[in-house]
Amino acid sequence: MPKGVTVWLTGLSGAGKSTIAHALQANAESRGRLVEILDGDIVRENLSRGLGFSKEDRDTNIRRIAFVSHLLTRHGAFVIVAAISPYAGVRNEAREMIGDFVEVHVDCSIDVLTARDTKGLYAKALTGEIKNFTGISDPYEAPTSPELVVSTAREDVAQSVGRIERYLEANGYINTD
Amino acid sequence: MPKGVTVWLTGLSGAGKSTIAHALQANAESRGRLVEILDGDIVRENLSRGLGFSKEDRDTNIRRIAFVSHLLTRHGAFVIVAAISPYAGVRNEAREMIGDFVEVHVDCSIDVLTARDTKGLYAKALTGEIKNFTGISDPYEAPTSPELVVSTAREDVAQSVGRIERYLEANGYINTD
Repeated sequence: MPKGVTVWLTGLSGAGKSTIAHALQANAESRGRLVEILDGDIVRENLSRGLGFSKEDRDTNIRRIAFVSHLLTRHGAFVIVAAISPYAGVRNEAREMIGDFVEVHVDCSIDVLTARDTKGLYAKALTGEIKNFTGISDPYEAPTSPELVVSTAREDVAQSVGRIERYLEANGYINTD
Repeated sequence: MPKGVTVWLTGLSGAGKSTIAHALQANAESRGRLVEILDGDIVRENLSRGLGFSKEDRDTNIRRIAFVSHLLTRHGAFVIVAAISPYAGVRNEAREMIGDFVEVHVDCSIDVLTARDTKGLYAKALTGEIKNFTGISDPYEAPTSPELVVSTAREDVAQSVGRIERYLEANGYINTD
């Protein structure tokens, strides 16, 4: 049985965190490993209702995700966090707490995201209709030394997921085929 | 590997939930099973800071404990919840969500608890210095059909823990020696 791990996907809204999370989950589950995805929305619904998008509230929300990921990881679970998690400080707290922690920067430029804008959020952020929007009106502190960077503008989902899986295999978090 | 389970200890403040939780944990861990205790204080610190003791806030706190217990249980963990959890409705929600759920009523009369009063809380509750105190100024809805009732006034910790362990063994949640 491989040890527990948290794969922490950080990146801007629309960069592809959830898509990668679900593809990684599907692959791992086809190989018999139960995977828990904790995405920002699930956690806001179940653990953080009432919190807003100030730095303090975002940090509190991320600390709660980290606490739950920590518990699951030490019980051997394969956890994928898919949350913007814009602040480096609290991501580093999560790394310290969890230990078996693989930070993946899901990277995509604001220009590409604004052009894609599949949910129309960037247009609303640019006009100010949505406030505190990470990358537009709120900061995003990119990881300085993540375990991996995947670029959803330059590689397809299968390539990104494949690189994450190879990292996890190499570090004993999933069995090799 | 036995399946995951949540042992949910409900009862009044001072009834002995934490004592039983730690004894049960020690026994199970001596038999090689990692155990997670989620007690009311840990969860208020990590998931529910800012919530108070109204029915709504208590229910929200218990729903968060249930959410985390559910995730841990489905990943195979042995979870012990030690929380007053005074309201039957939200305990039943937890039962539904978690599935592998063993509700244990840690029973002790108000008279005995008021006489013991190891932390001096009942004295303060009786004078009104502490408000919303379960069993004095706030309701406690005892379980009507728990898997087990343990009486900390009539049996010692080893007896209570032994009965819980036999229930868990009989239901495949811990291996028999």
